[in-house]
Amino acid sequence: MAAAEVGNRRTLRLVIEYQGTDFAGWQIQAQGRTVQGELARCLQTLLREPVIPVGAGRTDAGTHALGQVAHLHTHSDLPVERLHRGLNGLLPPDIAVHAVEEAPADFHARYSARGKRYRYRIRTAKSALDRQLVWSLYQHLELEPMARAAAYLAGTHQFAACCNQDPLPDHFLCHIVACAWTGDGAELAFEIEGNRFLRHMVRILVGTMVEIGRGRRPPEDMARLLESTDRTQAGPTAPAQGLCLVKVNYTQ
Amino acid sequence: MAAAEVGNRRTLRLVIEYQGTDFAGWQIQAQGRTVQGELARCLQTLLREPVIPVGAGRTDAGTHALGQVAHLHTHSDLPVERLHRGLNGLLPPDIAVHAVEEAPADFHARYSARGKRYRYRIRTAKSALDRQLVWSLYQHLELEPMARAAAYLAGTHQFAACCNQDPLPDHFLCHIVACAWTGDGAELAFEIEGNRFLRHMVRILVGTMVEIGRGRRPPEDMARLLESTDRTQAGPTAPAQGLCLVKVNYTQ
Repeated sequence: MAAAEVGNRRTLRLVIEYQGTDFAGWQIQAQGRTVQGELARCLQTLLREPVIPVGAGRTDAGTHALGQVAHLHTHSDLPVERLHRGLNGLLPPDIAVHAVEEAPADFHARYSARGKRYRYRIRTAKSALDRQLVWSLYQHLELEPMARAAAYLAGTHQFAACCNQDPLPDHFLCHIVACAWTGDGAELAFEIEGNRFLRHMVRILVGTMVEIGRGRRPPEDMARLLESTDRTQAGPTAPAQGLCLVKVNYTQ
Repeated sequence: MAAAEVGNRRTLRLVIEYQGTDFAGWQIQAQGRTVQGELARCLQTLLREPVIPVGAGRTDAGTHALGQVAHLHTHSDLPVERLHRGLNGLLPPDIAVHAVEEAPADFHARYSARGKRYRYRIRTAKSALDRQLVWSLYQHLELEPMARAAAYLAGTHQFAACCNQDPLPDHFLCHIVACAWTGDGAELAFEIEGNRFLRHMVRILVGTMVEIGRGRRPPEDMARLLESTDRTQAGPTAPAQGLCLVKVNYTQ
């Protein structure tokens, strides 16, 4: 075991799965149960010092994660294997830690990230087993126009019309490396990978493409939207519960 | 719309999904929330007469279904489309009706069934999103010996040693047409299809194969077990929450 000596500051990297249903989101708040808050509580118990983990991104209330990444600093010499087991034992059932690893001192879950992958799931009929992980939308959606709309998203665009501008981001430029709809009628899923995502961006893109799948607007609207900066031109924000942060990409 | 006239007795066939977590099983009981009980309550509201649906099989408390089948008789002339929508509106979120269809007068969900397919899911690490649908077993399982054990199950065997004999069934003979383990280490799944299943049979088979996957007994034990009639020779009954009734097969 090659743990650092007591007193040396270690940087640790966590990979975390959670079901967002019963959380007020990732970030610690004055009120409400949060993923960051539950982690901080259990980390303090195990590391015997106050520790606030920093996440790769702040997921909304209700949004899930299969591969959220966080880093933390600690002076504890607790081996990563014991911290991993201890966290999974202490954390509530709706948070699971997949990995705890030593990381370079300058590793930062948010600033070191090269990109993220999200998945948004829609059911067009009532479901029981997956009901908290999908947007249940009891309407027929035409996949082909939704796929044509999604094709406009690949590449680098200003996403000013497709985000919540409160708070105002530094800039609206995002590079989308992959995005696609898959599905069979009963379940549709949208996967999108990019270098960065603006607030509510995936949910607004999905809400817009659902209007296209209903035949209420043409696929070409997506191209017009990317040239506009007017949020009112986009569709409604799809519910948080269909969204899942699948993966965060790093070079290191 | 070709509904029967009021007064004529119709036979209807339902296909039902449910999450077993918060149910005391399928069958109506004096105490406890049951799937059959919730269905009966909503059917009575919609059909305006007392109706008890008959299921293809009684799933245990905690066990899930993706494709449970039930039949019922009614004198109501409510069209199947309206009954379908009405049920999904009235039923709680953990029950979803996939289909409501007119059926031949002699259709019986249990006696007309030719067979059933079950799936049993195991996770070898903590999971958050699927935690109520799997057996979380924080141990390494060797898939290859489990697959070898499963191979003995195909064909017609006496399953006396692999069932709960209370109540005693008419006979122990079951014909298994397909069974296999799949998985990647983090998640293992066992699928089995047969003409009939005895009480706790799938869960006892899984409990036994998990002992084999842990290296506590050899795969050949499964062959010995099928020749024995001694329940004490089999492994423990795996938890109900990993089990799901995937499908019921009919000729008609």
